[in-house]
Amino acid sequence: MNLPQPIGWNLDSTVRLLDQTLLPTEERYVRIETVEGMAEAIGALRTRGAPLIGVAAAMGMVLALRPAGDRPAADARLDTAGSLLIQTRPTAINLAGAVRRMLRRAAATAGDLERLRAALTEEASTVLREEQAACEAIGRAGQHLVPEGAVVCTICNAGVLATGGLGTATAPMYTAARAGRRFRVLTPETRPLLQGSRLTAWELGRAGISCTVLTDNMVAARLAGGDVTCAIVGADRVAANGDVANKIGTYALAVAAERHQVPLYVALPDTTFDPDTPDGAGIPIEQRASIEVSRFGATRTAPEDADVWNPAFDVTPAALVTGYLTPAGLVVPSQVTTYIAGLRR
Amino acid sequence: MNLPQPIGWNLDSTVRLLDQTLLPTEERYVRIETVEGMAEAIGALRTRGAPLIGVAAAMGMVLALRPAGDRPAADARLDTAGSLLIQTRPTAINLAGAVRRMLRRAAATAGDLERLRAALTEEASTVLREEQAACEAIGRAGQHLVPEGAVVCTICNAGVLATGGLGTATAPMYTAARAGRRFRVLTPETRPLLQGSRLTAWELGRAGISCTVLTDNMVAARLAGGDVTCAIVGADRVAANGDVANKIGTYALAVAAERHQVPLYVALPDTTFDPDTPDGAGIPIEQRASIEVSRFGATRTAPEDADVWNPAFDVTPAALVTGYLTPAGLVVPSQVTTYIAGLRR
Repeated sequence: MNLPQPIGWNLDSTVRLLDQTLLPTEERYVRIETVEGMAEAIGALRTRGAPLIGVAAAMGMVLALRPAGDRPAADARLDTAGSLLIQTRPTAINLAGAVRRMLRRAAATAGDLERLRAALTEEASTVLREEQAACEAIGRAGQHLVPEGAVVCTICNAGVLATGGLGTATAPMYTAARAGRRFRVLTPETRPLLQGSRLTAWELGRAGISCTVLTDNMVAARLAGGDVTCAIVGADRVAANGDVANKIGTYALAVAAERHQVPLYVALPDTTFDPDTPDGAGIPIEQRASIEVSRFGATRTAPEDADVWNPAFDVTPAALVTGYLTPAGLVVPSQVTTYIAGLRR
Repeated sequence: MNLPQPIGWNLDSTVRLLDQTLLPTEERYVRIETVEGMAEAIGALRTRGAPLIGVAAAMGMVLALRPAGDRPAADARLDTAGSLLIQTRPTAINLAGAVRRMLRRAAATAGDLERLRAALTEEASTVLREEQAACEAIGRAGQHLVPEGAVVCTICNAGVLATGGLGTATAPMYTAARAGRRFRVLTPETRPLLQGSRLTAWELGRAGISCTVLTDNMVAARLAGGDVTCAIVGADRVAANGDVANKIGTYALAVAAERHQVPLYVALPDTTFDPDTPDGAGIPIEQRASIEVSRFGATRTAPEDADVWNPAFDVTPAALVTGYLTPAGLVVPSQVTTYIAGLRR
């Protein structure tokens, strides 16, 4: 299968990043040389998806070590870099988790800047490799949910472009496609930034998987039509009680799915579970700029002075989730709190 | 209040039409001289909204009588014009109803082309006047649903721009504003053609009513937030059992509203009830071009070869409706079949 590579190292230890804001019109890779550049790329959604911004943040920490200097200066730069990266996007727990992991590895590494840089480069590569392995495992755990002839609804992009691996929500789809099954994926466009129609339809189409694009307000009507096998979505953070913060619109999908008895699965690596936040009410929800809603490119889509509400995420209560697709397998709601508690580090 | 005039006669008996596809960027009025021009304007949504396309169709029938000729030729032109207009948009019953009404008036009118033209001009003006009166009555019937400090959710545009009067869903809002009440209207943008953010936010804002624009996938999350007083929507056709065909996304709103005990009112003139269609399954749902979803102006929003699903309407079952706001007052669900049966002509 023809899968894109959303992030990677250049030979000179800078980062090569697919600028996802330009898709599907243009597949352009940008070169990121500094942690400030990485923070800008994460904030502007050039790279996005909970697992992938964890990877990007880990690589951003390594970029903070590119300038020459002594070890104390390097440690200070890492602290500043960590704070900068953590404040770019508050909802996905993977980002803060990756930063803390890099800081722990730094603290455990003796020696000069060169040794520190080598250790953190290795750690960032491990973060990426672990996310990719988690995607493979999620794919194995969930591929039976995508039988021959299935119609699977997703939302936003929880795919290759969100993880660097097979994706979270898309892993069962890619795994089913590898097994030769034919099926169709419904990709709601996911306003305001259209990650469903721009990104998910692009990466699945590239891999030869049939997609149908629809607007977000069509999802409930489509579920009422009766041809949808299941819904599989990603997550930006899952609280200790199983409540799911994910792209805005996930809650609307979950409510309609429950009404029409369409099972809803949340696919995620262990890094997306947050044992320290008791429930969805404790998850910070990022509010983004009005202009994402009131303009489309150069075109104004609402009056100049219109008030806009633009939360990037919503919270789906655990009661609406049929199952959690984790690298360890499918976790049913009655077991999820135990599963999450077991992840406490 | 500063209300726009979406349709009217020019002095030379051509039609002056606000081209709604250009709003909110530009307020441009186009001149329609022929029934073919009117059919194009309706099909391309330059004018839209169930009551207003009834008015536009009635005026289009008059335009068919502009060429000179004898009475038999005029009658033949009316038949052709009626068929042309009816096929432009299948869902709103008002359009076919207005065409049939014009044909009945023609059949009841003796005399030459000039007398026929005078009679049909009068009839078309009556259609507009009756829709405007219906809006006023709906406003009186529903204004108590918009108390001081209310937050009211609507969808699409069932406003001045959809009726030529105070609107259907907006009539209670304009009436409450006239009474000096302050409140806020949530206007989901209503993809693909953004009638909520482009049109409803524009006309309410112009009248000094506070609006908040949000994307369609935010509606359920906002209802979950608990600050929404009620939802008021329009309709394109209501079947004999009370099932409501309205803009795509209405069903999603209705499902979320029921979950959060937010009352849902459907505001409509009697011309939108269809006693001859038993239930929602019998209402034809217009499918529109893929390009409305896969492009935004000149910008591609989905891959070139993406499959698209683009129904313009969905059906909300009567069981999800709290009440029908009609010119005769609020009709509760248990009475609606009797009310509709009484409209049979």
